[in-house]
Amino acid sequence: MNSLLTSIRIVCVRPMYGGNMGSICRAMRNSGLNNLVLVDPSPDLYGEELRMMAMHALDVYKNRTEVATVEEAVGDCGAVAMTSGVDGFYRGHALSPREAAPDLLSVAERGMPVALVFGPEDKGMGLDELKLATHLIRIPTHPEYTSLNLSQAVLLVAHEMFLASGEYKSPEDATPPASHQFRERMLSTWEETMHDIAFCPDEKIPHMMMGLRRILTRGELTENDVKILMGLARQSTWAAKNLPSIEP
Amino acid sequence: MNSLLTSIRIVCVRPMYGGNMGSICRAMRNSGLNNLVLVDPSPDLYGEELRMMAMHALDVYKNRTEVATVEEAVGDCGAVAMTSGVDGFYRGHALSPREAAPDLLSVAERGMPVALVFGPEDKGMGLDELKLATHLIRIPTHPEYTSLNLSQAVLLVAHEMFLASGEYKSPEDATPPASHQFRERMLSTWEETMHDIAFCPDEKIPHMMMGLRRILTRGELTENDVKILMGLARQSTWAAKNLPSIEP
Repeated sequence: MNSLLTSIRIVCVRPMYGGNMGSICRAMRNSGLNNLVLVDPSPDLYGEELRMMAMHALDVYKNRTEVATVEEAVGDCGAVAMTSGVDGFYRGHALSPREAAPDLLSVAERGMPVALVFGPEDKGMGLDELKLATHLIRIPTHPEYTSLNLSQAVLLVAHEMFLASGEYKSPEDATPPASHQFRERMLSTWEETMHDIAFCPDEKIPHMMMGLRRILTRGELTENDVKILMGLARQSTWAAKNLPSIEP
Repeated sequence: MNSLLTSIRIVCVRPMYGGNMGSICRAMRNSGLNNLVLVDPSPDLYGEELRMMAMHALDVYKNRTEVATVEEAVGDCGAVAMTSGVDGFYRGHALSPREAAPDLLSVAERGMPVALVFGPEDKGMGLDELKLATHLIRIPTHPEYTSLNLSQAVLLVAHEMFLASGEYKSPEDATPPASHQFRERMLSTWEETMHDIAFCPDEKIPHMMMGLRRILTRGELTENDVKILMGLARQSTWAAKNLPSIEP
């Protein structure tokens, strides 16, 4: 795989809880990341909680690297992005994950590993570690509740890297959009149908058609959509002319 | 609070696990959302796991509404956005959270509640529920691992609503950016310092200054930044002239 995402490394500093670590593994796989480095992790990290939350992403944990210090974890990295909620330090230089992602990917593009570093659950990283950052990331949160769960923080940053990498292809419609011609043919069929089913006095039909046109062309219509609408109009006309009337 | 976010409702259909529900409460508070509706939740939802993961966001759970069906949960809503990983249904109409957010907020702006609906952990929602959606949301994930944890899915959608609401104010720098004039004064001080400390032959100074200029003006410099750099230059000159020389 030649993806830029292979150059992105998630670094967790002194992680404490297995459940969070499992969720982190899963969030990484959701975002196309596989490279996990733990700095001095809790010895109790691995267990049932971690396995349960990681689901089928447990390989990410199994393939982790463990080191003793942040310095070791990021030594070879061209960019070191640290996520912190700390106020006052580097305040104005903190970027949102969305702002930082393109710049970090451009470092990966030039062949250098990029570290995304996250502190421990209880009190984040110290200033002596934060000072090592080339990019300080601050995740936008509501001012009334700014403290993010560790795995949620990893997810939000990893997700922005994934989106910025351009690797996601949005699902395409099964059928292409209908052509102008086909849409107009469907609309004039409906105009005839309004007449045939005596929907309203004939002189009001153009006005009603403006309403129907507005409703039916609000979003994109696929060929299949137009076929369904065309069929409904035709069948209404057919039913009005051919089905036996029901006595009142 | 007159925030548009008060019109946004998180609807969880048949949620199963307390830990996820606690994480959802916290993710909601992080995103400025407080309105939680549970459709036919598991009777075992509330417990230690939920309290632990919710942290200080437990009020969101305590103030929840419980109803029996999706219809009841979304009856008064002007827009009903459902998040699903299901392929094949409405494929081409599915929007990313980022694409859907402005449209959903514009419904809230016109005074109607908006529901963001999420299915149960094990198999998501059925087609009979998905068909009620006005907006189908699909969260971008890596094709090799598309299955998102429920609380992570809620976070990603809620976070985009929060960002689109414009309620987040990014941290401002303590001091304003330095003026052009002040930056240039600092740079010419460095030029004099290069001469005073005999950094290189005088004829090479203009070239070196181009390099230093490139380094120091790569990002935005605040007034404080320029003061630090100016002080360094001046002190180097002073030290070169006034401190006793150390014999080799």
